[in-house]
Amino acid sequence: MLIQLAVDRRSIKDALRIAEAARPYIDVLEIGTSYIKDYGMSCIRTVKAAFPDLTVLADLKTCDEAEYEFRKAFEAGADIATVMGSASFQTVSICCETAKKYSRRAMIDLLECPEERIAWLTALRDAIFCVHISKDSGKTFTGSVVPKVLKSAGVQIAAAGGVTAAQLPTLAQGGIRLAIIGSAIAGAEDVAAAASVLRQAADSADHVLQH
Amino acid sequence: MLIQLAVDRRSIKDALRIAEAARPYIDVLEIGTSYIKDYGMSCIRTVKAAFPDLTVLADLKTCDEAEYEFRKAFEAGADIATVMGSASFQTVSICCETAKKYSRRAMIDLLECPEERIAWLTALRDAIFCVHISKDSGKTFTGSVVPKVLKSAGVQIAAAGGVTAAQLPTLAQGGIRLAIIGSAIAGAEDVAAAASVLRQAADSADHVLQH
Repeated sequence: MLIQLAVDRRSIKDALRIAEAARPYIDVLEIGTSYIKDYGMSCIRTVKAAFPDLTVLADLKTCDEAEYEFRKAFEAGADIATVMGSASFQTVSICCETAKKYSRRAMIDLLECPEERIAWLTALRDAIFCVHISKDSGKTFTGSVVPKVLKSAGVQIAAAGGVTAAQLPTLAQGGIRLAIIGSAIAGAEDVAAAASVLRQAADSADHVLQH
Repeated sequence: MLIQLAVDRRSIKDALRIAEAARPYIDVLEIGTSYIKDYGMSCIRTVKAAFPDLTVLADLKTCDEAEYEFRKAFEAGADIATVMGSASFQTVSICCETAKKYSRRAMIDLLECPEERIAWLTALRDAIFCVHISKDSGKTFTGSVVPKVLKSAGVQIAAAGGVTAAQLPTLAQGGIRLAIIGSAIAGAEDVAAAASVLRQAADSADHVLQH
């Protein structure tokens, strides 16, 4: 199971410090939507320059103007960028095409997407599909979180929304390949220790699955 | 009928020049999503400082973290900010509450929202509801564009998506109170002349409705 660290709503300096501490334990570093909207896409360039060897995801949450937004993010150094599954099918498709053109990836954020919509989105097989519980909803993952239609599609699946170490075994069993972790790492007093715990939980979850 | 000028994907300098030329003819100046994501929310401050007497809308397209994004936009000087109707109901509600707290407005972007969702969003009566055709879809407004459930709710309705002067009478008749105009003004060689044509078309549409 891969770990994506999401940082949000802090200064760029704090984000870089947190990322540096967590770095040995994570696979993907997410530049949260708040950074994009607070500082503009130049923050992607700053983060990628600081971590050139780390996979960097820009949480653009693109809703329209797909080619423009994805091109800008990739030119700034993002390896993955996100588009809302609730956008028009053309928008999501163009994001995937743009990602392909730049040899990068698109992640489709399934926030509030009904199963029927998810079903037709799975035609975009190269994308990563992110099951996402809204922060504002105050909910968290309980039990099986992956819609059947997604599981049977054989696509790469991520999960975001208050994910903790304790949830990783259930998420892994549910077919989640990438766990997106925010406050459980970024909000910890000892970021490196928290990231290490998450790493171990992710590896154990994989180990259990393989036996 | 009110006119909102949307500028997007240009330099801030160009945006200010276009807004200055169109200013006598418009009611609301929209800072497009591309500005927010390219330059960060500080661009709201720049635009509001240049046009303190004009109603300024920040097209945030908020999908989550409602309080944070709306607060930041209002603190930067936005009079109206946008939230996606496809976000969680909590997110949209919090945007409306935050707008109320700051004595500003929320606009709910109905991009890709099915009627059922629009129906429950109309509980948020203080918001402006924006019927929106995605740029990426390549479609345009034809005939009646306002869902019945929205028309009967008695809320303020806006329309966005390649709107031209020729469409204004139909839009006004359909119950649209605010026409959001992008390239028909911003893309014109003579911005002031184009804005004046739109203004006249909007006023005529109102006139026809009143007689």
